[in-house]
Amino acid sequence: MLRLGPLAAAGRLLPAGPRFGPPRPSGGRVSLSRSRPPGPVGDRGLLARQVRAAAGSAGGGRSPVLKTPKGTRDHPPAHAALRDRLLAAVVTCFKRHGAAAIDTPVLELRETLMGKYGEDTKLIYELQDQGGELLALRYDLTVPFARYLAMNKITNMKRYHVAKVYRRDNPATTRGRYREFYQCDFDIAGQFDPMIPDAECLKIVHEILSDLQLGDFLIKVNDRRILDGMFAVCGVPDSKFRTICSSVDKLDKIPWEEVRSEMVGEKGLSPEAADHIGDYVQLHGGLDLIEQLLQDPKLSQNKLAKEGLGDMKLLFEYLTLFGITGKISFDLSLARGLDYYTGVIFEAVLLQPENDHVEEPVSVGSVAGGGRYDGLVGMFDPKGRKVPCVGVSIGIERIFSILEQRVEASEEKIRTTETQVLVASAQKKLLEERLKLISELWNAGIKAEVLYKKNPKLLNQLQYCEDTGIPLVAIVGEQELKDGVVKLRVVATREEVNVRRESLVEEIRMRTSRP
Amino acid sequence: MLRLGPLAAAGRLLPAGPRFGPPRPSGGRVSLSRSRPPGPVGDRGLLARQVRAAAGSAGGGRSPVLKTPKGTRDHPPAHAALRDRLLAAVVTCFKRHGAAAIDTPVLELRETLMGKYGEDTKLIYELQDQGGELLALRYDLTVPFARYLAMNKITNMKRYHVAKVYRRDNPATTRGRYREFYQCDFDIAGQFDPMIPDAECLKIVHEILSDLQLGDFLIKVNDRRILDGMFAVCGVPDSKFRTICSSVDKLDKIPWEEVRSEMVGEKGLSPEAADHIGDYVQLHGGLDLIEQLLQDPKLSQNKLAKEGLGDMKLLFEYLTLFGITGKISFDLSLARGLDYYTGVIFEAVLLQPENDHVEEPVSVGSVAGGGRYDGLVGMFDPKGRKVPCVGVSIGIERIFSILEQRVEASEEKIRTTETQVLVASAQKKLLEERLKLISELWNAGIKAEVLYKKNPKLLNQLQYCEDTGIPLVAIVGEQELKDGVVKLRVVATREEVNVRRESLVEEIRMRTSRP
Repeated sequence: MLRLGPLAAAGRLLPAGPRFGPPRPSGGRVSLSRSRPPGPVGDRGLLARQVRAAAGSAGGGRSPVLKTPKGTRDHPPAHAALRDRLLAAVVTCFKRHGAAAIDTPVLELRETLMGKYGEDTKLIYELQDQGGELLALRYDLTVPFARYLAMNKITNMKRYHVAKVYRRDNPATTRGRYREFYQCDFDIAGQFDPMIPDAECLKIVHEILSDLQLGDFLIKVNDRRILDGMFAVCGVPDSKFRTICSSVDKLDKIPWEEVRSEMVGEKGLSPEAADHIGDYVQLHGGLDLIEQLLQDPKLSQNKLAKEGLGDMKLLFEYLTLFGITGKISFDLSLARGLDYYTGVIFEAVLLQPENDHVEEPVSVGSVAGGGRYDGLVGMFDPKGRKVPCVGVSIGIERIFSILEQRVEASEEKIRTTETQVLVASAQKKLLEERLKLISELWNAGIKAEVLYKKNPKLLNQLQYCEDTGIPLVAIVGEQELKDGVVKLRVVATREEVNVRRESLVEEIRMRTSRP
Repeated sequence: MLRLGPLAAAGRLLPAGPRFGPPRPSGGRVSLSRSRPPGPVGDRGLLARQVRAAAGSAGGGRSPVLKTPKGTRDHPPAHAALRDRLLAAVVTCFKRHGAAAIDTPVLELRETLMGKYGEDTKLIYELQDQGGELLALRYDLTVPFARYLAMNKITNMKRYHVAKVYRRDNPATTRGRYREFYQCDFDIAGQFDPMIPDAECLKIVHEILSDLQLGDFLIKVNDRRILDGMFAVCGVPDSKFRTICSSVDKLDKIPWEEVRSEMVGEKGLSPEAADHIGDYVQLHGGLDLIEQLLQDPKLSQNKLAKEGLGDMKLLFEYLTLFGITGKISFDLSLARGLDYYTGVIFEAVLLQPENDHVEEPVSVGSVAGGGRYDGLVGMFDPKGRKVPCVGVSIGIERIFSILEQRVEASEEKIRTTETQVLVASAQKKLLEERLKLISELWNAGIKAEVLYKKNPKLLNQLQYCEDTGIPLVAIVGEQELKDGVVKLRVVATREEVNVRRESLVEEIRMRTSRP
């Protein structure tokens, strides 16, 4: 809970509208600084300023309509640029592993999504019945992928999909939890020899989290069959497997005692069974633990658990070949909320959020998760034909929160445009000449801008370059026009050279190519 | 209306379910070929096959749930790859003109969208009231941009935004009209000297349509002030300006006689006024026509029309400097449907859809449109402060339809993955060695795949490369392991060389770098 200052608290008692003094937070939220001084077009600004302006959903505050929906946000240029960089890093990894891109609609038939997400089904956004089909916004990219495979009778595919999903969750925007957010998914569909695709998914998580240099991380791994076997030997009735699994899933947020009382009090599990589960879910380790549980007198008698443990052992062997077991933990408390998992499940958490530069490090929780879902495609196939699948989803929004904080703290300036040259003039009445020149540059593929003024001052044109990070200025003047040259100025050094007009494109390219 | 064959018609009378014979169209649609032979992971296939499989919304046909919502579609890999290429071309142009990227939510408050789209407001998708705010899906990117500017008090900005928008329109999917589709928008906000940003928007349309080589095109230009002035001098009452404007907007789809009878019959305009409008809306031309109308005894007396014509003249002067008037037509019948335009409006149409290779060329209609909307931001500002804006939207889906047909007709194979090398083995029991090697390659940034089989046949591994376009195979074998080498095979030429393991990464890079 945020504590509200007196102004914010009082603000809720006043009628909405612009008449009542200074802007104040709407909806009981403490608003961040929102005002933004008018700058020139493309003002580079600080990420800090832009992101602050867009943070949370509260907007102008003065007018009730001036906001984005609860739990959503705009991405201003500096933020969008950072996000594009991050998404590019993730997609690079997915392509490195041979995945093809697909895209599916944001809208799905309501019935496509129902019965796939367990208790989370209530978080699905539904569209109004406006006549015609009953629609909903996708909750993840996995169910649409399974629907796509079944609909097109595809039995083999390695694909990635980067797109927004929607959850009517309680947003915790400071921790990077939004109602609209990007998911970056990589999935392997097909009948293959066991645990090879599963191991590749874990390798991908390891690569991405290492590449992004987010600090130390841990990938927890478990298997739904081990969980189910464990529930069975602990005396949980079959009918309660899924709901008890949901309770176990909360162990990363609430302590065992609370989970236990939910199991016994709300879900009617016997105290003995709960305690028995409690013994197991505190276990975590590596190959040793797997070997130990394979010898466990009760678990080893359970067919499902034995299968799961056997595969877990194989998985660890492959992960050893990949050299990544150092960051992998077999953890019996990992359950994952979604209904559709059938085998291996995993979740990556950051151990020490990068906090060298920030005072209050954000707690971001899980930054990647996934698992095997061998039954989901069959739910869509009229004959129930199964296509085994395993996949991973990168929690890109939470990683954003960390990178945002880091960039903000470092006061790094992010250029939001790629303009190479500003076409300027030193005298009046040269708009036509500026337009003629910039047209030549655009046609040659040069990224160029011009101020939208008939007679801008040279100083203002140079200042615009300083503000937006444009490295070069091409200056036209009466004399230069007569001489058939353009004066090219390097903004950083103030160096000026006359370049023959026919060589200008080449000169700009040369001076702005990356070293 | 589609005519249904006997099977399809009969099919509607039978209960749904897989038991009743062959697949049949659902919902009275004639379904396209949907079956797709199972292929290896990443099957390159033909775009034709993939696109056909995803065309329209009808899916399996056997099960009513197996489809995407009406008017939406999946994008299979070959399609997604083509789309990414197209979007990249558009974004390159936007960046060439110095725009920064922003992103806004797909969801907006319902009230943000209301009263902005005239008669099209009924096409907005609304979300169910699930408690909390009343939400809708964005109808375009322009209104969210205006909301963003007002909310953040930004008075100067040049931005682009490429994202999906939603319209509950009657889909005509063969012509590239969908209910979910990409818009690619470029907008310039700010108070500047007249017509310079407007001219840049037209230059951008010209550049993009030229770059994409879609065949001949024409950009029609008009001005809302000229239209309003024309309505005034024709005797249209002020209160009917917008609705008569909507009628004029239909002139590209239905003949004048029908538009006239709508004006007179449905909208209560006098026949004389309608005929008067009829005289004007058949006019189109260039600077000559502008000069002629500036001399028109009635129009020249109307303040709005005079302003509009004066600016149109200035616009044509700038377009002349840009060298693009050859494809621009000042056209008095152009009206544009949306309420928010206040000045210049424009729309680009393809004159001869590329039809060298296709039997029935798609008629795609408008492929770009835009205009000036000086009042929209003020509608969101509590004090009504205006931020003048002008922008352009590229109709990317319609352009897709053309490119799709072209690729399909040419049987061009589009690679959907970028994998550089397949790690293979010639003997059994080498899975561990394959995994060790591929892990090294991934860590070095090489795009590599491995078949998920313990003991795949070499022939199958080579076939996989043929199918998916992977250019190289790195083969591990007992002897190679002993010798510290890997056999590198070039798929196209079948050439094989032994490469020392420590040089393998460099060798793959060298052989797969673009010439």
